[in-house]
Order: sequence, then C-alpha cells, then structure tokens
Amino acid sequence: MDIDTEYVIRPIGRVESPLADRESAPRQGDEGAPDAWLVFTAGASPGLLGLEVGADVLVLTWLDRADRATLRVHPRGDLSRPEQGVFATRSPDRPNPIGLHRVRILAIEENRFLVGDLEAIDGTPIVDVKPVLGAISER
Amino acid sequence: MDIDTEYVIRPIGRVESPLADRESAPRQGDEGAPDAWLVFTAGASPGLLGLEVGADVLVLTWLDRADRATLRVHPRGDLSRPEQGVFATRSPDRPNPIGLHRVRILAIEENRFLVGDLEAIDGTPIVDVKPVLGAISER
Repeated sequence: MDIDTEYVIRPIGRVESPLADRESAPRQGDEGAPDAWLVFTAGASPGLLGLEVGADVLVLTWLDRADRATLRVHPRGDLSRPEQGVFATRSPDRPNPIGLHRVRILAIEENRFLVGDLEAIDGTPIVDVKPVLGAISER
Repeated sequence: MDIDTEYVIRPIGRVESPLADRESAPRQGDEGAPDAWLVFTAGASPGLLGLEVGADVLVLTWLDRADRATLRVHPRGDLSRPEQGVFATRSPDRPNPIGLHRVRILAIEENRFLVGDLEAIDGTPIVDVKPVLGAISER
C-alpha cells in the first residue's frame, strides 16, 4: 500500500523557551525541562476559551528541526543499545515529527500561556492543544 | 503574531475499521470502540521494528473528515453545555485535526497491526505511532 495524499499543518502558535537548540534540551519534560511560554496566534485564540490555570493539557508541536528521513535509531542516542524503529521510540527524528508534551498551565496572559516542564526548544511551532482526559463520567 | 510557515503531513498508513462514518463512532476509544487494523505503508515499515504484541502505544491520526474552521463547540455536542474553545475539548473539529488514541497491540501480521478499542473511522490516515512512556528508569 502507498498513500499519495498529503495534508497541510498550519501552526496555531510558537514556543518561547530558554532552550536554544536540541543539544540543550532534555529528552522528556520530566527530565529537567524549564518553564516556557506558549504564544498563540490571534486567529487561534477563540479556541482557547475554557483552558484555565492549573489544568494539565497535551501540547502537540511540529519538531521543525527533526530529520524526517530517519526510520531507525539507537534509543536515547545510546550506541550500546540495538537499533529500534522510530515508532517504538520517542525520537524527534521520524517521518511526521509531531511532539507530544503533557504540561500544566501556570499562568495565562491573553494569548500567552506559561507552562511547566516543556522540553520543546525556542521557536517550535505549536499545532494543537488537548485536555487530558479524565474518567468517562467527567467528560 | 501570525505564522505563515506550513508543514506537510505524509501519512504512514491507514486505519481499517468496521466504523464507517463519524455518526457510528464512539467519542473515545474507551467508550465502546471496536478492534481495528493499522495498515502501514511499505515505506514506513522499517520504523515499526521493536513494536510488540501486548504493548500500549499512542497512535496519531489525521481526522480527514473534520471541519478545520471550527474554533468553538458545545462539549460532546450537548447544546445544554456552554460553548468551549476546541483546545479545551477533544472535538475532532479543530484547526489541525490530529487524533490521539491510546491502544494495545493485539496481533501483528507484517505491516498490519491489530489494536483494541480504536474510535477512528475506516480509512483514517495514520501519521505517527509512539510508545507510552514508562518511568524514567525504564526509558
């Protein structure tokens, strides 16, 4: 099977972070990542209604400095570990480099949201935000 | 702030499911969704190495029948609930309609993976697969 159809991602914002490049970023948010700002476009801002300080959300980013041709990696860059397919790892290098980050909202200033523990680097495009799902009865 | 840059998603596979349309799909996988097959392209298949039966994975899809212009919805389509921004809900209608599904791998037949409880409908493009993260010591 092959698929010819492509889809276009239009970012809804960008990350503002003290992390300047991949080398300075931890591998996951719970491995020492800093607080960062999510800065949303004016066009996307009506979609933010209902997000509140203290909520845990999933932020989806487009890891625009990733290598999309990579299909096999040594997990966590450790050459002593056997190669794995990228879909069995969280490598940023993958065909569609979508980053998935669970963060807590710490402050809101209009279109700017401060969140904790985000490993995405400065300038990373934001493509979606979703609430963390609670129990079925709370949806 | 506005962002002009766009990015191109190239699907790595498609969902084969008995769910034919949005009306027949449950809202989340744990609300009565059926088993479904993830069918990957030959090009993506080297990236599957290391995924095994019994593993829980996150499947990212492109909800190609969503309305990308929607920014406000009544949660779960319930008109008695006040409108919310789409980023505070799991509505499939949103600017970048990426579906996020946690599923268990039940069987593997070459490029075809059977998974449980998937609410994506038949033909939905798959854009990424990620392992569920365990404790830091297990990464």
